[in-house]
Amino acid sequence: MNSNLAILITGGTLDKIHDTLTESLIFGGGGKTRVQNILKTGRCDSPRLHVLMKMDSLDMTDEHRDIILKSVNATPEDRIVITHGTGSMELTAKYLDGKVEGKTVVLTGAMRPQSLGKSDAGFNVGGAIIAAQTLPNGVYGVMNGQVFNAQDIHKNTQSGRFDR
Amino acid sequence: MNSNLAILITGGTLDKIHDTLTESLIFGGGGKTRVQNILKTGRCDSPRLHVLMKMDSLDMTDEHRDIILKSVNATPEDRIVITHGTGSMELTAKYLDGKVEGKTVVLTGAMRPQSLGKSDAGFNVGGAIIAAQTLPNGVYGVMNGQVFNAQDIHKNTQSGRFDR
Amino acid sequence: MNSNLAILITGGTLDKIHDTLTESLIFGGGGKTRVQNILKTGRCDSPRLHVLMKMDSLDMTDEHRDIILKSVNATPEDRIVITHGTGSMELTAKYLDGKVEGKTVVLTGAMRPQSLGKSDAGFNVGGAIIAAQTLPNGVYGVMNGQVFNAQDIHKNTQSGRFDR
Amino acid sequence: MNSNLAILITGGTLDKIHDTLTESLIFGGGGKTRVQNILKTGRCDSPRLHVLMKMDSLDMTDEHRDIILKSVNATPEDRIVITHGTGSMELTAKYLDGKVEGKTVVLTGAMRPQSLGKSDAGFNVGGAIIAAQTLPNGVYGVMNGQVFNAQDIHKNTQSGRFDR
Repeated sequence: MNSNLAILITGGTLDKIHDTLTESLIFGGGGKTRVQNILKTGRCDSPRLHVLMKMDSLDMTDEHRDIILKSVNATPEDRIVITHGTGSMELTAKYLDGKVEGKTVVLTGAMRPQSLGKSDAGFNVGGAIIAAQTLPNGVYGVMNGQVFNAQDIHKNTQSGRFDR
Repeated sequence: MNSNLAILITGGTLDKIHDTLTESLIFGGGGKTRVQNILKTGRCDSPRLHVLMKMDSLDMTDEHRDIILKSVNATPEDRIVITHGTGSMELTAKYLDGKVEGKTVVLTGAMRPQSLGKSDAGFNVGGAIIAAQTLPNGVYGVMNGQVFNAQDIHKNTQSGRFDR
Repeated sequence: MNSNLAILITGGTLDKIHDTLTESLIFGGGGKTRVQNILKTGRCDSPRLHVLMKMDSLDMTDEHRDIILKSVNATPEDRIVITHGTGSMELTAKYLDGKVEGKTVVLTGAMRPQSLGKSDAGFNVGGAIIAAQTLPNGVYGVMNGQVFNAQDIHKNTQSGRFDR
Repeated sequence: MNSNLAILITGGTLDKIHDTLTESLIFGGGGKTRVQNILKTGRCDSPRLHVLMKMDSLDMTDEHRDIILKSVNATPEDRIVITHGTGSMELTAKYLDGKVEGKTVVLTGAMRPQSLGKSDAGFNVGGAIIAAQTLPNGVYGVMNGQVFNAQDIHKNTQSGRFDR
């Protein structure tokens, strides 16, 4: 694996699991993330994973985005994937854009949790990991097989897709 | 979706299904490919799919590779993903390398059939689709989260991985 | 298939699906039920399926239970499986108990929706279908590999299991 | 769980896994069996599992059947499920029939390996566990939602089903 790649985890739908007791979708406890399952299934040798937070992106404030920004700048690797909820991915991308130097940062996420099967999470993370290694420095999003510049990321809440 | 992207199908482990009658892994009939399932799960809007052949890559000869080459050059799109068996992916990449002009060609495949679940197919195809859109013209391979130049593709048959 | 067997659908966790737009678990529309998927996967030839309702069993009132009772008694088959939410399965079983004559009625359900994968739904429905064919007339529950008389059905909401 | 229930493992399609190196379906090593995964998914508390052998049932001889018979008779539990390949399930059932006393023995298996997903294994084992608890002493088969007496078990190799 490219030792120059790190993955920062912030949560979002991708990382949710079904809780049988409450019959709802929650984040699992501790420092675990479903991204570990994605990498194992993808036979992708351990890029460094760092769980920053596990939260719904609609609940994110600029304080959370500042934590993400500081973490990106403090990360020794200069190829960085950030898993993120789809609800405010565009806000975080715009927040980071222009404040990161010498790094390629790619946000990605999923419309269906990885743990539920038939999820877009593996496809999206697989794409984001390649984008982080092939794109020039800057902030991007990768969703449903497309690459977006930070300023072009936009979720269509009706279709559940990201399109230009 | 990038209307400039096409996916050529040649078979390989990725496209196999379990046949209950013979209790073995076979290719499904007709013009179907499991890549359709991958794109649907990845919520990736229809790049053009073209099924060239469905075969074990260990059975491929230069005649088959010539069909692939001619198809690549005849494809109107200039961003092309080729799904391929892992066993001789490196031979096909070397065969194409230098014979394709003005196109970005990315070979990918899987170690476990998409239809069996817990497959690396979605992760790999997700990466290859992004690589085809972000890399300069040339022939590449994308496997297990890594990008390889045509001359560097090599399957480690012991580990079941592609590494440098 | 035993032409003497029918399956009545009332909903419950078993039949829920993930809705990407609302990011919650809902019932799919129309007369479809995930029990169709279970039977297909189980290679179980079409017992008659009848969708009575699709609802959370915690929202069920005696009016709903009366609909179930009337449907059981009106069903021409005398071997009947009822899929039901786990939250009030014991109330419905007690409601039916003693009011059904000449029929074997088996309630079952799931702690994890069939559509999410790794669900107990197939295991439970597979057991309930056998119980309905092998048990004498009466009202029963089948969950997690156990058979319960109507009066003994009890969900342990801490463990998420049914035990004596 | 009914402490009176045991599961004897003999292999068959149910227990096969995909081997990425040989690209074929094999039995996993050691004393593990995919029946453990089925019971966990079915939330079924540990009946005693005993791995007798893991083999294709088409390769079974009467020597293997004698091992199964002796094991059935030596098992302290008197409710017994046997997982078995579908290819010769009827031969083993007939071999056991009449030689077992004071026990209910239910053979079951799968047309698609549990490990490949979308398998009939959970549905069948869920049914067999219930059959073993509800049927009188004797030897039976449970497949695709049906119960068969030992003498009536018959695989239709064209349809991949067991029917009367």
